[in-house]
Amino acid sequence: MKAIIQTDLSNPRALEWADAPEPTLEDGQVLVKVKAAGVNRADLLQAAGHYPPPKGVTDTLGLECAGVIEEVKGDSQGWKVGDEVCCLLSGGAYAEKVAVPAGQILPLPHGYSFTEAASIVEVACTVFSNVVMIAGLKEGNLLLVHGGAGGIGTFAIQMAKRLGARVAVTAGSAEKLAKCKKLGADILINYKEEDFEEIVAAEGGANVILDIMGAKYLDRNVKALAKDGHLVIIGMQGGVKGELNIGRLLSKRGSITATGLRYRDLADKARIVNATEDTVWPMLADGTVTPQIHEVMDMRDAAKAHELLDSGAVSGKIVLTA
Amino acid sequence: MKAIIQTDLSNPRALEWADAPEPTLEDGQVLVKVKAAGVNRADLLQAAGHYPPPKGVTDTLGLECAGVIEEVKGDSQGWKVGDEVCCLLSGGAYAEKVAVPAGQILPLPHGYSFTEAASIVEVACTVFSNVVMIAGLKEGNLLLVHGGAGGIGTFAIQMAKRLGARVAVTAGSAEKLAKCKKLGADILINYKEEDFEEIVAAEGGANVILDIMGAKYLDRNVKALAKDGHLVIIGMQGGVKGELNIGRLLSKRGSITATGLRYRDLADKARIVNATEDTVWPMLADGTVTPQIHEVMDMRDAAKAHELLDSGAVSGKIVLTA
Repeated sequence: MKAIIQTDLSNPRALEWADAPEPTLEDGQVLVKVKAAGVNRADLLQAAGHYPPPKGVTDTLGLECAGVIEEVKGDSQGWKVGDEVCCLLSGGAYAEKVAVPAGQILPLPHGYSFTEAASIVEVACTVFSNVVMIAGLKEGNLLLVHGGAGGIGTFAIQMAKRLGARVAVTAGSAEKLAKCKKLGADILINYKEEDFEEIVAAEGGANVILDIMGAKYLDRNVKALAKDGHLVIIGMQGGVKGELNIGRLLSKRGSITATGLRYRDLADKARIVNATEDTVWPMLADGTVTPQIHEVMDMRDAAKAHELLDSGAVSGKIVLTA
Repeated sequence: MKAIIQTDLSNPRALEWADAPEPTLEDGQVLVKVKAAGVNRADLLQAAGHYPPPKGVTDTLGLECAGVIEEVKGDSQGWKVGDEVCCLLSGGAYAEKVAVPAGQILPLPHGYSFTEAASIVEVACTVFSNVVMIAGLKEGNLLLVHGGAGGIGTFAIQMAKRLGARVAVTAGSAEKLAKCKKLGADILINYKEEDFEEIVAAEGGANVILDIMGAKYLDRNVKALAKDGHLVIIGMQGGVKGELNIGRLLSKRGSITATGLRYRDLADKARIVNATEDTVWPMLADGTVTPQIHEVMDMRDAAKAHELLDSGAVSGKIVLTA
């Protein structure tokens, strides 16, 4: 088969569509013929050598895909050859075929194309697991999402509004904020011109903050938390080490969790995928949450797709088609 | 009535047994004639001006007591005059009488004296709410408790063992560690001679850490966490601001909560008191968790009791009798 191969590990853009061995199935896995794969910031990190796949997982890029089941091995949990599906992956989506643990497969959301489905699996599982399963966002709460116009952000705004929460977002341009507003965001903050923590604190504080900046925003996020608020850090674009004011956190009885999906074990991933399907898939089916696709590109152009995502000029997701 | 009055706010030891106005009951409160009151480190902080009572609460010291109900007002949730009870308080226990919200009253644990009951309410609610309700300690988990020989520590060791967890403790002397061992602690660490984070990491890491040191131990506690571990900070004896390595926390999918009981609202306190009674009171009644009382003193000697607790030479609790 063909897959995207990184031909020079010191060059994150050396991504070529080349021959690769077909995946070998283990018991409880299915082989999916990939129709479309979502591009995530994590893929850029991996190509730059900063985010290695878990042990035993292919080093081919790609954390989500949609396609058709070609083969099953052992207990496939009811999935069968010919099923049209989408998948949460630990790697391998930038290829013609990928091996997937049966617990990480979902049906296409009702009415969704492969391209749309491939754009939504990773953000849906990430946002739902962090914002709802870990941080417990409830109706009437205030959610603060950094990078509101990105893949994670555009999904989080819609899901939180559907759950009856208010949503504050940060973004770096009026255009991006306008997009957030259109998706339902209540409080729009241009981080280049305003102090998000003051604006959010004046609104009573955020019950949940979904953060991708890490150290750079740590103290400011704690300032923005409401009583009993929960800061969930899923990215460290602003650095790894930051000063934590424990006194301030204690005065709010606040919690901080730093977490991710990729290194979780199979049972944990299956639990998240199931809960996401139960809660989020109906929102996708009835159109209250919609996929936000910035551009669809040919998988052969993976390097260009990475270039584009890295430029910061993207709102929503980039999807590669095989 | 008489109560302990701080006659000089700049002197934390200026504590005198003097005339004070009787508490006035609000609806849903009961008046308790105090037989015994537990001494907590928080009382020392308050006398030093660092831990003010919540709005509307007496500035008399004392976060827990046992005694007899003398009067009820409005809906007392079934409690009646003459009931022998113990209470979680926001303040006021160092007195002959105290007003208590009905939701913060518990029966004396079966077979317990007033003195024993007064020694256990605050630690039981604190440890259970943090270790179980917030951090989710489970059978087979490893709990790390700092200050294993203190009031919090001696209770946490016994409760965690009863729940089927392993327990690691830190303390500053062989004598204190021997006491922890007697109560069931599995891993004994003299913090003056050993690096707790290395020992705990070698045991697979702590699923839950109950911390009273704050900044000084922040980085070391994160190193000691197991995958999906939860650090709960309830004291800042080692400072308020510390460097957080978010990358390390993320690699463990770790959580940090900094919290306390005193400023929670009535409903939240009632929820914690109820859950503690349901789960912990049977452990006290059957003797698998026992009160650890260092010394019983007359309430008139509150200043001496604070002096003693401050000296660090205490293992278990000091109780004042009225």
